[in-house]
Amino acid sequence: MKNLRGVLCYEGTHYLGWQKTREGPSIEGELEKALQILLRHPVELQAASRTDAGVHAKGQVFNFFTSNEEIGLNRLCRGANALLPRDIQILALEETSNNFHPTLDATGKEYTYEICTDPIQLPFLRFHSWHFPYSLDIDAMQSASQALIGTHDFTSFCNDFSLLKPNPRCSIKTITFQPLGESRMKILVQGNRFLYKMMRNLAGSLVYVGCGKISSSSMVDILHAKDRRLAGVTAPAHGLYLQNVFYESI
Amino acid sequence: MKNLRGVLCYEGTHYLGWQKTREGPSIEGELEKALQILLRHPVELQAASRTDAGVHAKGQVFNFFTSNEEIGLNRLCRGANALLPRDIQILALEETSNNFHPTLDATGKEYTYEICTDPIQLPFLRFHSWHFPYSLDIDAMQSASQALIGTHDFTSFCNDFSLLKPNPRCSIKTITFQPLGESRMKILVQGNRFLYKMMRNLAGSLVYVGCGKISSSSMVDILHAKDRRLAGVTAPAHGLYLQNVFYESI
Repeated sequence: MKNLRGVLCYEGTHYLGWQKTREGPSIEGELEKALQILLRHPVELQAASRTDAGVHAKGQVFNFFTSNEEIGLNRLCRGANALLPRDIQILALEETSNNFHPTLDATGKEYTYEICTDPIQLPFLRFHSWHFPYSLDIDAMQSASQALIGTHDFTSFCNDFSLLKPNPRCSIKTITFQPLGESRMKILVQGNRFLYKMMRNLAGSLVYVGCGKISSSSMVDILHAKDRRLAGVTAPAHGLYLQNVFYESI
Repeated sequence: MKNLRGVLCYEGTHYLGWQKTREGPSIEGELEKALQILLRHPVELQAASRTDAGVHAKGQVFNFFTSNEEIGLNRLCRGANALLPRDIQILALEETSNNFHPTLDATGKEYTYEICTDPIQLPFLRFHSWHFPYSLDIDAMQSASQALIGTHDFTSFCNDFSLLKPNPRCSIKTITFQPLGESRMKILVQGNRFLYKMMRNLAGSLVYVGCGKISSSSMVDILHAKDRRLAGVTAPAHGLYLQNVFYESI
């Protein structure tokens, strides 16, 4: 048995998220189907992040075991990409140690969130950026983000308490704001782990700071209150990208 | 009667091109439908460029006449954008002189063509960039492009002779190559007018130079031969963008 590890890029628009479901198409379902055709045995996939419906990924990490000795890595990767829909493609595939697990071994993740403040919902960005047609005070957002850096209980930024992990403490390493031309921006967040919808709640809260709905200085209180109702809106899925997953070595 | 002039942005993927047709959805058809609902009279549209199926526009210029005195420009623009599909939006709308014609008055146009040479067809670029997974020699392309600058008979770069304008001479002002990261590039071409599929034939021929299928020095001979068979392939529609249309004044 070989443990294969891959990096996956997808536009999440037409899928119900990573996880396989009977309700409709999923990233996991499409990838599993393609790999099973080529490997001729059932494949069980695991991914670093179970992205939600509409969420994109530029560096999702997945693994699966195979007993197929005939097909080489290159042929498997190219073959899968030919079978996969054009909005899902494998960027890299390699053999890894048998005990590698994409979720458990991850030391951190980077998500990015894109926002467009143009008065018009630009056609090319309609599935790739949150259309928020009001001017944003990036300085205020940057200042508010300082309160989030470090290790905190992020209960105020978790949407579903039944899904709250036993440990609501997460360490946010960096929050960076990157302007993309005049009316677009990107928020980059690196952290060791993220609670359910945490990244979208961080983005929504920072945007609320940017437009003056939440004061920049109140971010500390929101964090301490451990009350989801005090934070900002959950930003829509289509602005979110899983950018990178980090591991100790390899 | 007022003559209104607008700037339109669209992702051409789901349309059969600018021109209205019974075969399926068109940009003109969608825009006409939205405007007629708001203006309550038939609308006859004219555009600077009749873009082909799958071709995008960031700065298409159109005009139409209206006798409706009730609806203001702002309300008309916002209303039309609300009625239009999300892949077509009006960027600007203003009143212009009654003799303004978007095609006849245009002094020039700028098209851009995007190419991705990554070995993998990247999901986010599948409708927006020609996937040509071979390395391109940009220096050779740049050198070949020099032969195209200036006023020439561009018959070798026109696809359908029945559509050849009475005058096959066009003036190409600039051809610029812009790298976009490691495996992407953009070709920007400004000219006074373009023959049928000329921009896609220029892009295809320059890419053929870039990968060594056509020698950089033979571009002069191809131009002089006035023979479409000597030039390169017609590059696919989905890499092409109508970027700008230029006018004397306004």
